[in-house]
Amino acid sequence: MRVVTLDEIKSVLPNIDLLPAIEEGFTAYSAGEAVVPPVGELLLPQGEVHIKYGFIKDHDYYVIKIASGFYENPLIGLSSSSGLMLLFRQATGELAAILLDEGHLTDTRTAVAGAIAAKHLAPENVRRIGIFGTGIQARLQLQYLSQVVPCRDVAVWGRTPQHVDAYCDEMRQVGFNAEHVDDPGELVATCNLIVTTTPSDRPLLSADHLQPGTHITAVGADTPDKQELETDMLKRAEVVVADSIAQCTQRGEIHHALAQKAIERGAIVELGDIVSGQAAGRTSDDQITVADLTGVAVQDIQIATAVVAQLEK
Amino acid sequence: MRVVTLDEIKSVLPNIDLLPAIEEGFTAYSAGEAVVPPVGELLLPQGEVHIKYGFIKDHDYYVIKIASGFYENPLIGLSSSSGLMLLFRQATGELAAILLDEGHLTDTRTAVAGAIAAKHLAPENVRRIGIFGTGIQARLQLQYLSQVVPCRDVAVWGRTPQHVDAYCDEMRQVGFNAEHVDDPGELVATCNLIVTTTPSDRPLLSADHLQPGTHITAVGADTPDKQELETDMLKRAEVVVADSIAQCTQRGEIHHALAQKAIERGAIVELGDIVSGQAAGRTSDDQITVADLTGVAVQDIQIATAVVAQLEK
Repeated sequence: MRVVTLDEIKSVLPNIDLLPAIEEGFTAYSAGEAVVPPVGELLLPQGEVHIKYGFIKDHDYYVIKIASGFYENPLIGLSSSSGLMLLFRQATGELAAILLDEGHLTDTRTAVAGAIAAKHLAPENVRRIGIFGTGIQARLQLQYLSQVVPCRDVAVWGRTPQHVDAYCDEMRQVGFNAEHVDDPGELVATCNLIVTTTPSDRPLLSADHLQPGTHITAVGADTPDKQELETDMLKRAEVVVADSIAQCTQRGEIHHALAQKAIERGAIVELGDIVSGQAAGRTSDDQITVADLTGVAVQDIQIATAVVAQLEK
Repeated sequence: MRVVTLDEIKSVLPNIDLLPAIEEGFTAYSAGEAVVPPVGELLLPQGEVHIKYGFIKDHDYYVIKIASGFYENPLIGLSSSSGLMLLFRQATGELAAILLDEGHLTDTRTAVAGAIAAKHLAPENVRRIGIFGTGIQARLQLQYLSQVVPCRDVAVWGRTPQHVDAYCDEMRQVGFNAEHVDDPGELVATCNLIVTTTPSDRPLLSADHLQPGTHITAVGADTPDKQELETDMLKRAEVVVADSIAQCTQRGEIHHALAQKAIERGAIVELGDIVSGQAAGRTSDDQITVADLTGVAVQDIQIATAVVAQLEK
């Protein structure tokens, strides 16, 4: 049994081609080749904990991932997100590895899923990328998007102006032309690839000013309460995509849109079916598309397995 | 963060007074002071995995326990049960300790729960203890029962006669007068404290020959499918006790008895309420009592916390 530290994980991640690994996870999931029970959840006075677990049939491992968000932690100098991943052998149940990733693999596989959604759903010509939020996920989304989208013009909105400025400075240093916008409406009006990354529990982005051809990836809302998009955004969309239809009917943006009858369940397409070609994604350049990513255990399974395989090379 | 090995765990366990620690857990649970979400479950072709987790309000830690049963493992020289426990700080979500107990703490807290059930429900004068099964749990149940019951006469039944003989030999070496009985009926007829410990998925013990005053603790059945007791046993019992009513309506003996309408949900008493004195347990020496122990996360929380506290002394 191997205990792997965050430093070791960070040292091998650049050598792994994560995008196809996680695409394969989504494809297996949508093809019914993965077993992914409902997310376990623990709500504490100071934070929340998610347990995601499952396996892809006939693979080597099953994976149990624990991720937490304790949003007051930064006040005492600790990261708000934390976590670890456990790999066990499917044949015997033996613990094979503990990945002490402190949430980094969850952050990474979430950003990679954003890149996968953009690869399959963004319009041909992305003029400007809109990033909603200024945290870790806002940074990683842009990093992985740059693998699939050539555009380097970015508009950024966040609740705290100083955080937006700091984010823009940081992104400029890695080659993005990042600009602070003053309100969410401006972001929607000027960007045709939008990624929302906040833990907001009330919708801050509406379909007013939404331009034809825009793709929106919503990654912030992963619980029944959280919501970043007004449901009119999903109503306007020609294509609504879920990472997991089962999970998105219980949590995230789609869950809210279904509850308000803004969309119909039968119209939702699963990301893995788009990746595999079983379902159509965007079929014309002026469609509006929305991908709701609540985070599925197959992503954890795939990234954890890839890290362990890379370490064993 | 501390990684604790099985050897370290075994070295401190004898210095911990587990019975009151786990009684306190049951009491807190039944008093509504614990948060224990439904058990997470993963069913693989070769085995099954349970995830139990939760916390007692205002305590230091929340605990996530992973336990697996891979019943073909002994054929290749591995233990059938395995697992680990993770302790996280309630205030910050930080991982405080990984207890690599390989299932030993689960086995131990299950045996301690059996002793707690016997302490509160067994008749005053236990003439003979009946042990159903010959595995690890059969061994540990007798070890912890000896802390609360003076009787050292034991009848043992198991599917494999050689295993019964080996078990009896081993138990004789630690002071029990253990005898191999040829059928389950003989065990029921001659024992007034019976503990069932097998992973059977069909009932093997019936109420035929059941004597007044007998107490039965069923620990083997912890899934919806497993069952050791014919439901007529629960029907005959004056007192039916669950470690967790919520959990026992979904899995274990009580779940089967409810499905067959052998008992009524309103009549079930929770172990923690008996421990705290909120509910009556046995009120006369000729009552038949049944305790169905499916294993509750509060037991894991309490044993894990006690081990870490002992290591920090």
